[in-house]
Amino acid sequence: MKNMITANAHCDGPCGVYDPASARIAAEAALSMTKKLINLEIPEHTDGKAMVAYLNTFSRYVAIKEEQTHLAKKELLVLWTDYFKPQHLEKYPDLHDTFWQAAKLCSAVKCEVNLEHAEELMEVVEKIHNIFWETKGKDVAWVPASY
Amino acid sequence: MKNMITANAHCDGPCGVYDPASARIAAEAALSMTKKLINLEIPEHTDGKAMVAYLNTFSRYVAIKEEQTHLAKKELLVLWTDYFKPQHLEKYPDLHDTFWQAAKLCSAVKCEVNLEHAEELMEVVEKIHNIFWETKGKDVAWVPASY
Amino acid sequence: MKNMITANAHCDGPCGVYDPASARIAAEAALSMTKKLINLEIPEHTDGKAMVAYLNTFSRYVAIKEEQTHLAKKELLVLWTDYFKPQHLEKYPDLHDTFWQAAKLCSAVKCEVNLEHAEELMEVVEKIHNIFWETKGKDVAWVPASY
Amino acid sequence: MKNMITANAHCDGPCGVYDPASARIAAEAALSMTKKLINLEIPEHTDGKAMVAYLNTFSRYVAIKEEQTHLAKKELLVLWTDYFKPQHLEKYPDLHDTFWQAAKLCSAVKCEVNLEHAEELMEVVEKIHNIFWETKGKDVAWVPASY
Amino acid sequence: MKNMITANAHCDGPCGVYDPASARIAAEAALSMTKKLINLEIPEHTDGKAMVAYLNTFSRYVAIKEEQTHLAKKELLVLWTDYFKPQHLEKYPDLHDTFWQAAKLCSAVKCEVNLEHAEELMEVVEKIHNIFWETKGKDVAWVPASY
Amino acid sequence: MKNMITANAHCDGPCGVYDPASARIAAEAALSMTKKLINLEIPEHTDGKAMVAYLNTFSRYVAIKEEQTHLAKKELLVLWTDYFKPQHLEKYPDLHDTFWQAAKLCSAVKCEVNLEHAEELMEVVEKIHNIFWETKGKDVAWVPASY
Repeated sequence: MKNMITANAHCDGPCGVYDPASARIAAEAALSMTKKLINLEIPEHTDGKAMVAYLNTFSRYVAIKEEQTHLAKKELLVLWTDYFKPQHLEKYPDLHDTFWQAAKLCSAVKCEVNLEHAEELMEVVEKIHNIFWETKGKDVAWVPASY
Repeated sequence: MKNMITANAHCDGPCGVYDPASARIAAEAALSMTKKLINLEIPEHTDGKAMVAYLNTFSRYVAIKEEQTHLAKKELLVLWTDYFKPQHLEKYPDLHDTFWQAAKLCSAVKCEVNLEHAEELMEVVEKIHNIFWETKGKDVAWVPASY
Repeated sequence: MKNMITANAHCDGPCGVYDPASARIAAEAALSMTKKLINLEIPEHTDGKAMVAYLNTFSRYVAIKEEQTHLAKKELLVLWTDYFKPQHLEKYPDLHDTFWQAAKLCSAVKCEVNLEHAEELMEVVEKIHNIFWETKGKDVAWVPASY
Repeated sequence: MKNMITANAHCDGPCGVYDPASARIAAEAALSMTKKLINLEIPEHTDGKAMVAYLNTFSRYVAIKEEQTHLAKKELLVLWTDYFKPQHLEKYPDLHDTFWQAAKLCSAVKCEVNLEHAEELMEVVEKIHNIFWETKGKDVAWVPASY
Repeated sequence: MKNMITANAHCDGPCGVYDPASARIAAEAALSMTKKLINLEIPEHTDGKAMVAYLNTFSRYVAIKEEQTHLAKKELLVLWTDYFKPQHLEKYPDLHDTFWQAAKLCSAVKCEVNLEHAEELMEVVEKIHNIFWETKGKDVAWVPASY
Repeated sequence: MKNMITANAHCDGPCGVYDPASARIAAEAALSMTKKLINLEIPEHTDGKAMVAYLNTFSRYVAIKEEQTHLAKKELLVLWTDYFKPQHLEKYPDLHDTFWQAAKLCSAVKCEVNLEHAEELMEVVEKIHNIFWETKGKDVAWVPASY
């Protein structure tokens, strides 16, 4: 499989544009949705109009959380499978495990309404942001869009 | 940017098929879902089977409303960004604002369960239908599929 | 339209890879979601935290059921429209009806939370699996992934 | 499977908005792309700049044809699987075959660059438009957007 | 339509996470593809193996350019329709026109292989980045990922 | 992050339906497209009609290869991130590397027209098929659909 890796490096990334900001934006949205879901107030069961508004908002927030955690996972895995090369693995021996945990955190934030995991996801995305820019030899600030 | 607009007009619309019916169909579906959500009867909290049926239907209708308002917005913006040209703007000076309001209405109908906004969306789509066919010099009837 | 069918047969299926396993996997997922939705326990309306967990899970399961029934339908219709040819229709005269019923079952499982229909869907997918492999002259076992 | 059909009729079409215009618009786009592909002039092999422009346009038109035939097929099959009911089949006994041929024509127009099939597709979509509106007891004109 | 805007502001952006970085990343990828398409060397027509490699790469780059310009346009229009409010329009009276031109540039970069337009797109995205962060009262650096 | 893994195991796979057949079907399609691309005969540059047919087919095959390698990668990564658990890693210590190589092979088959890599991809999918069913304690035959 050696020559595949060479070939892959040769035509590497047709566009060559990788940026962990994509994963960060999606993870922020998932965190935001998690917070809003926790804070939504459940109305009286008999208040029809309020129940409709509540369930509409609840369903939508869950769907957005679903979509954004899926996106965060996808963007992280693009970095893992396409950007990172064997030489990076030598320098960052826990690279595989970092991405495995990050992907599993995306799934957890998707399945649950769990603030702790949503914040852990932001932390691991920040860790990957730092590794990524270190491999590029650039100093890029971590600037979440939402705070 | 002048020559871009020329170039764009030159290769304008690879398919050249624009039809506001696409936006109309999606807006009708969003209106229909809004009505059905308002009219769904909330069962007794203790009636397990009825609750499952109710929540299943509710979630699905919200998701369809989400999808169809998204589609209506997309179809409207295709007209705004690709079909309409500077010369149309001269004749319809509030073109930008009409589309901006229409797009914001799509978002409102998506976020809320609000009959008034869903009907306003239909009205603005009809207005755009009329402008569109006027620019084509054709007289095409406004025929909603659902009534 | 005669020569279309010839032409179509000529370039038939650019990839030539048809496998009813795709429809089977999606139908299994829809059946699994249906079962889980029926078995979810509704918490006390006043138990805020439990309600959030319940509604989050409920919404997600409905969305997955929606997606998987859609996928099952799509995969079945690919077989009907692209794999099966007029000569198969001669041998299986109720082919059209089998697929029509199967597609309508997908819609029913999508709209409802109905165990009976979800199981009927599995049965019709198994029937199509058998017809398909019979036309290929191969004996392929029916192995659901989930049991 | 009888009660499935009843159940399906009961919750029929959550939005209840069916309109063959969606299939017509996609079929028109596929026809337009087919015509443009046939008329594209192949430049001299040695004229680098012209080759880039030619291949760029060619690839894009093929992709749009792919997408629009896929969409036309999807929209037609929604009518077949969701709108049409057993009672329609009694009145239009070749309903299954009409849709089967229409779906196969979509695939042919997708696979080939074939003007004859693209025009046959428009004809079968018009036939379905007429059947559809007849079942609704309404007289809706057939107005292609592109001519 | 006044109360719609109020309502919209109230539930503004379920996730509240807007970041022009998404549009920037997509515009960078479109620029990169445009450059690579211009620089691909056309092989001898008789060199079968080289032609296959060339056409494979060419088709893929066009498809990626298509996807990324589509994405850039989508991300820009999300900002225009959802983030920006009437009060911003007062401060930036050419807001509508800036986004209209930006959207038309996305279409031009999609339709053509045109370096000048791809670079103009980057410029207008940078302009929007600056307006956006000015409205948020934050000073965020413009850091393209690819250079 | 320990409790995340626990939580994840608890709500593991809302549908619980995992089947490496999905990745296998996509990998087969990518292999089939690779073979067909290699075998397409380039017509005379001056034979306009044949060139249109050739370029249409070529573009489509590349697009299908793109889509199917993307799908194969996605399906493989679902297994890696969602199905496999830390206890599996103990038993299969090269699990991470197997999936990393498999994902990189998907990218290589996508970027190139390379028969060797397309066949290596089938091999690694078969290896994963065997690991997967071993962890489930079941003996499921490896039955490619296309030969």
